[in-house]
Amino acid sequence: MGKTTIPTSTLQRLPQYLEVLKQLRRAGLKTVTATKISVFADVHPTLVRKDLSFTGINKSKAPQRGYDIKELYAAIERVLNWSDTSACYLVGVGHLGSALLGYQEFAQRGLAIVAAFDNDPAKIGKIIHGVTVHSALEFTTMATRNHISIGIITVPPESAQLIADIMVHSGIKAIWNFTPQKIIVPPDIIVEYVDMFASLAVLSRRLAERD
Amino acid sequence: MGKTTIPTSTLQRLPQYLEVLKQLRRAGLKTVTATKISVFADVHPTLVRKDLSFTGINKSKAPQRGYDIKELYAAIERVLNWSDTSACYLVGVGHLGSALLGYQEFAQRGLAIVAAFDNDPAKIGKIIHGVTVHSALEFTTMATRNHISIGIITVPPESAQLIADIMVHSGIKAIWNFTPQKIIVPPDIIVEYVDMFASLAVLSRRLAERD
Repeated sequence: MGKTTIPTSTLQRLPQYLEVLKQLRRAGLKTVTATKISVFADVHPTLVRKDLSFTGINKSKAPQRGYDIKELYAAIERVLNWSDTSACYLVGVGHLGSALLGYQEFAQRGLAIVAAFDNDPAKIGKIIHGVTVHSALEFTTMATRNHISIGIITVPPESAQLIADIMVHSGIKAIWNFTPQKIIVPPDIIVEYVDMFASLAVLSRRLAERD
Repeated sequence: MGKTTIPTSTLQRLPQYLEVLKQLRRAGLKTVTATKISVFADVHPTLVRKDLSFTGINKSKAPQRGYDIKELYAAIERVLNWSDTSACYLVGVGHLGSALLGYQEFAQRGLAIVAAFDNDPAKIGKIIHGVTVHSALEFTTMATRNHISIGIITVPPESAQLIADIMVHSGIKAIWNFTPQKIIVPPDIIVEYVDMFASLAVLSRRLAERD
């Protein structure tokens, strides 16, 4: 059975709240109000309250003290499914792909990259940050056998569609695309982009507009 | 003198059009219609036309043939200021920071990371992908002397605000923040985020909702 659909904008803000809670906890606090979260996360208090309502958590008994930080943290993690760990495969072991293999922040957010794939014979067989690089030709067999649901694409943009096709064919349900290439997949496949160049485009232009 | 302010959503889409044009050019085409770009970029044709109007470029004389690919490419690059190269400094040479130092895609998009900074003595003095790592203490002196306008933040989230403060103090005008930590800066400073975790949050939740 599916869970409640939470709006995308809420989901995008939840990780920021986790960062705020982490820092408040580190500072020794036990409880926090929505207003305080709103100041630190730089999000309007009304939105913070709306977002937190999706966690199903109640405020602590003394309303002026707000939420119990530990409980709220756990509740947000549960909503994001970050308390469980999902195994995922990464394709494209260039600079960015290699970096992601060593990026410890993922493990804390429920994502374990358990195998990597490339078509460069010089990379196949190598172990990078503890993850073995396999031939891209092995992707389907391995992903199917291990029931892998999440695939990360870090190949050059012109190969992104081909890799996406292979992933869908191999039973991948969610694709995290780090290339600026839009990929076309069946409607039941989840696709999320980390589009650095969209962000760089805004930065470069705004700087040029300013000068 | 400032240039025309272009909407953020347009700027975010322009890099995708560049990818499409690159691939069409590689396939040997010389001209392209807005409709064709719209199909490949998976963006509504009306939006494509609106976005392209900001480039100031005209359609080729035979309207049914659309735009000259080479001219349109150059026009988009000009709008994004990607035809010039801006020197920038990166702070935080962990896995992600190191990867960005070697990320050749930036050079093609007008961004040259010319120096890196860290506070780890084991990293200071190293050369990573051709870029020297300096002590973070040298940031202000070097950035001021070399009139650096762009700073990239790839430190752990809890240090992001401190680094942002140092950047602003050192004359940086635009900050590209790769941490999920919201940073607070004076209103004339441009800040752009590459928030991987916002994107991961949507991916993880949608997958959980599906199952």
